[in-house]
Amino acid sequence: MSNKNGVEWSIRVGDGSSMVLETEHTHGVTRLWDRLKGLVVRFVMRVWMFLKKAWDLGVDDPRKFFHCLKVGVALMVVSLFYYMRPLYDGVGVSAIWAVMTVVVVFEYTVGGTLYKCLNRICATFLAGFLALGIHWIASHTGHQFEPYIMGISLFILASATTFSRFIPVVKARYDYGCTIFILTYSLVSVSGYRVDHLLHMAHERLSTIIIGTCLCIITSMVVFPVWAGLELHLLVPRNMDKLAKSLDCCVDDYFGHGDEETKKSLQSYKCVLNSKASEESMANFARWEPAHGRFNFRHPWKKYLKIGASSRSCVYCIETLTSCLASKNQVPESIKNHLESACMNLSSSSSNVIRELATTVSTMTRPVKINIAVKDMKNAVRELQNDLKSLSDLLIQPNDHEEKNEPKDITIMPLLDVIPLVSFASLLETASRIEENMVKEVEELAESAQFKQPEDEVKLKKIVSDEENAIALQRV
Amino acid sequence: MSNKNGVEWSIRVGDGSSMVLETEHTHGVTRLWDRLKGLVVRFVMRVWMFLKKAWDLGVDDPRKFFHCLKVGVALMVVSLFYYMRPLYDGVGVSAIWAVMTVVVVFEYTVGGTLYKCLNRICATFLAGFLALGIHWIASHTGHQFEPYIMGISLFILASATTFSRFIPVVKARYDYGCTIFILTYSLVSVSGYRVDHLLHMAHERLSTIIIGTCLCIITSMVVFPVWAGLELHLLVPRNMDKLAKSLDCCVDDYFGHGDEETKKSLQSYKCVLNSKASEESMANFARWEPAHGRFNFRHPWKKYLKIGASSRSCVYCIETLTSCLASKNQVPESIKNHLESACMNLSSSSSNVIRELATTVSTMTRPVKINIAVKDMKNAVRELQNDLKSLSDLLIQPNDHEEKNEPKDITIMPLLDVIPLVSFASLLETASRIEENMVKEVEELAESAQFKQPEDEVKLKKIVSDEENAIALQRV
Repeated sequence: MSNKNGVEWSIRVGDGSSMVLETEHTHGVTRLWDRLKGLVVRFVMRVWMFLKKAWDLGVDDPRKFFHCLKVGVALMVVSLFYYMRPLYDGVGVSAIWAVMTVVVVFEYTVGGTLYKCLNRICATFLAGFLALGIHWIASHTGHQFEPYIMGISLFILASATTFSRFIPVVKARYDYGCTIFILTYSLVSVSGYRVDHLLHMAHERLSTIIIGTCLCIITSMVVFPVWAGLELHLLVPRNMDKLAKSLDCCVDDYFGHGDEETKKSLQSYKCVLNSKASEESMANFARWEPAHGRFNFRHPWKKYLKIGASSRSCVYCIETLTSCLASKNQVPESIKNHLESACMNLSSSSSNVIRELATTVSTMTRPVKINIAVKDMKNAVRELQNDLKSLSDLLIQPNDHEEKNEPKDITIMPLLDVIPLVSFASLLETASRIEENMVKEVEELAESAQFKQPEDEVKLKKIVSDEENAIALQRV
Repeated sequence: MSNKNGVEWSIRVGDGSSMVLETEHTHGVTRLWDRLKGLVVRFVMRVWMFLKKAWDLGVDDPRKFFHCLKVGVALMVVSLFYYMRPLYDGVGVSAIWAVMTVVVVFEYTVGGTLYKCLNRICATFLAGFLALGIHWIASHTGHQFEPYIMGISLFILASATTFSRFIPVVKARYDYGCTIFILTYSLVSVSGYRVDHLLHMAHERLSTIIIGTCLCIITSMVVFPVWAGLELHLLVPRNMDKLAKSLDCCVDDYFGHGDEETKKSLQSYKCVLNSKASEESMANFARWEPAHGRFNFRHPWKKYLKIGASSRSCVYCIETLTSCLASKNQVPESIKNHLESACMNLSSSSSNVIRELATTVSTMTRPVKINIAVKDMKNAVRELQNDLKSLSDLLIQPNDHEEKNEPKDITIMPLLDVIPLVSFASLLETASRIEENMVKEVEELAESAQFKQPEDEVKLKKIVSDEENAIALQRV
C-alpha cells in the first residue's frame, strides 16, 4: 500500500520520469522497511521492558523466585507417580488427580496452601459420602427414578452451595471448599450412574488427593516457608513506620525544612491507603497456620486488622494534611515562626508514639515507654493550644501598641492569611487524637497475645533481628 | 461430670441422707438437661440467625438467587451428556470435563464468566499444542530421553508461569489462564507418556471444554445477565451520591440542624472508603464483555476507576470533617451564626456539583449545568473567605468600640474557640478543591466515551429509568 502511494505521489510532483518513479519506489520500500523495523524494535523494547520489570519484581523479593522453583519441584515429584511404572500400577489412572491437586492447591504462603488443602480434602470427603449415600438410596428406589433423584439433588445442592458463597464469612473461609464440594458431588453422582466400581474410584481419588496435598503442605512448610502470619506481623508495623515518616516529612515540608528527599518520603503513606485488602487476606490465611516462630495457633490476627484500620484513619488525616501543603506560602512568616516549634514538637511526639507502637507490635513486648510518649504528645497538644491562644494576641498586638501612628485597618493582621496554618495545626491535633485510639488497640493486642514483659527486651530485639536477617538472607 | 459434682456437694452441705442425695441427683440431671437444652437452643438460634442473614442477603439483591438457579440449571443440562446414552457414546468419558468446566467457570457477572471461559479455552489450546509438540520432539530423540525432556520442560514452564502470576498485569487479566496452562501442560505431558491415543484425548478434552464454556456463556448472557460494566457504571455515581449526602449531613450536623436521620445518613460515606477492590475487579471483568446496553466493547472503564479514586480522596476529607464534629460545641454561637450561611452554601453547592457529576455519569450526557454549578461553588468559596475575613473584624470589634468602658483582655474573643470552626470551614474548601479534580475526570470520561449531547436528555432519562426498572423488576 505504502509502495503504491509512493508511485502516485511521484506522478503528482514530478512529471513522470522513470528515474523519479524508481527512487520513489525505493523510497517507498525503504519507508516500509523503516516502519517495519520501527515496529519490531518497539515490540522488542516492550517485551524487554516487561521482562526487566518482572525480573526486578523477583530481585526485590527473591522468595517469589523460590516459590516458583518450589512449585516446579512439587510438580516434578508428583509426576514421578506417572513416570515410574511400579507406582503407576499401584495408584492407577487417577494419579492425574494428584497432579491437578498440586497445580491448583499450591499457594505463595503456608496459610494459603493449608486453606486450600484442608478445604479440598474436607469438601471431597463430604461431597463423596453424600453422593454415595444419595446414590445408594436412589438405586434402591428403582432404576427409572435414579437419574431424577440424582439430578434433582445435584440441582438443589449446587444452588444452595453457590448461594452460600455470597455470605461473607463463607466466602472468606470456605470459598474454595464450596467449589470443590459442587465439583466432587457432580462428578461422583454423574459417574455413579455409569461406573459400577464407585467405591474403588472414590478411594482412589481421595488417596491421590491426599498424596497431592501432603506433598504441597510439606514443600510449602519446610522449604523456605512464607508464613502469612509473619508477613502480617511485619506489614502492620512497617506501615506504621511509614505513617510516622510521612507525618514528620509533611510538617517539615510545611515549615520549609524539607528537601527533595523529604518530598519523596512524604508519599510513602500512599501505599498504606490501599493495604486493607492484603491485610485481610493475610489474616484470613494466617488463621489456618499452625504455631510458628513466636506465634501460637490461635494468635489474635484480627487485632492486627484493627490496628491496620486505625493506621488507615490516621493516613486519611495525613492525606488531608498534604492537601494543606499547597497553601503553605500564603501564611506570613511571622505567624509561621510563632507556631513552628509547637507544630514540630507535636508532629515529632506524635510520630514518636506511632514508632513506639510499631516497636511494641514488632518486638511483641508490652509497651512501657508508650505512656511517657503519650504524655509527651498531650503536652505538645497543650503547648500548641497555648501558642494558638497567644496567636490572637499577636494578631491584635499592632493594633494595641502602634494605635496612635497608623490607621487600624493595616495594622490588624488579616485572619484569612492565618487560616491555612490554623487548620493545619488543628489537623495535627486530630491526628494525635486518632493515635490515642491506636494506642488502645495495640494495648488490646498486647493483652490478648500475651506480649512479654520488657525485661527480656534485649533478647527479644535479637530474635526480631534474627527473623529479619533470615528473611533478608532469603532475599539475597 | 455435673452429676458427680452434685453428689459431692450434697455430702459437704448435709450429712449424707439418701433423700438429699436423691434430690441432688435429680437436680444434677435437671441442671445437665438445662445446660444441654441451652446449648441446643443457642445452636439452633445461631443457625437460624445465619440462615436469616443469608436469606436477607438474597432478598436484598434477588439476582443472587437467580445466579444460583442458573448454576444449578447449567449443571443439570451438562449432566444430560452423561445421563443420555446416545450423547454419552459420542463424547465419551471425558464428558466429565464439561461438568468440571461448568462448575469452575460460572461466575456471577457476564464479564467474570467470559474472563474465565476465554482464559480456559486459550490456555488449554496453547498448553495442549505445546505439550504435543514437545512430546513429538521428545519421542524422536529416543525412548530413554523422553521422560527427562518432558520432566525438565514441565519444570521450566511451570516455574515461569507461576512467576508470571506475580506480575500485576498478568495477575489481573490472565491469572486463571496461567493455572489452566500449567494444569493442561502437566496433564498432557504426563498422560502422553502413557496414553497412546493422545490426539484423540486432546480433541475430546477440547470439545468438552468448548461445550461447557459455551453453555456457561449462553446461560450467563441470556438468562437475567449481570453485566460487570453496568454494575460499575451504576456503582460509581451511587457512591458519588452517597458522598454528596454525607457532605450535606455533616454540615447540617455541625450547625445543629441534624436529627437522628441525619446522623445515620452521615455514615453512608463509609462504604465508599472500601469500594476500591470491588471497583477494580468490576473494571477488570467489564473489559471482557461485548457491547451491551449503551456501552461499546471498548468503553473506557478505566476512567471510572479514576473517578472512583477522586471520590475516595473526597471521602478522606469528609472522614476528617466528621472528626471535627466532636468539637462543634466549643465554638461560641455568635461565631457559628456568622459563618453558618456561608458554610451551608458551600456544602450545598459542593454537593450539588457532585450530584450533577453523578447524573452526568449515569445518564451519559455531556455535562452542561456543571459549569454553572462549579461557578456557584467557587462563589460560595469566595463568600466563605469573605466571611472569614470579616470574622477577624468581629473578633476585634469589641476591642474597637467599647475601648473606653472595659478592659481589653475580656473583650477580645479568644481565637482558640474559633479554631475548630475555622478549620472545619477550610476543610470544606479543601473538599471543593478536590471536586474540581473530579469535574476534570468526568469530563475526560465524557470525551472518551463520547457522551451524548443533552438535547436527548429526556429520552436518555427514560433509558436510564428503564434500565433501573429492569434491574428493579429482577429484584422483585
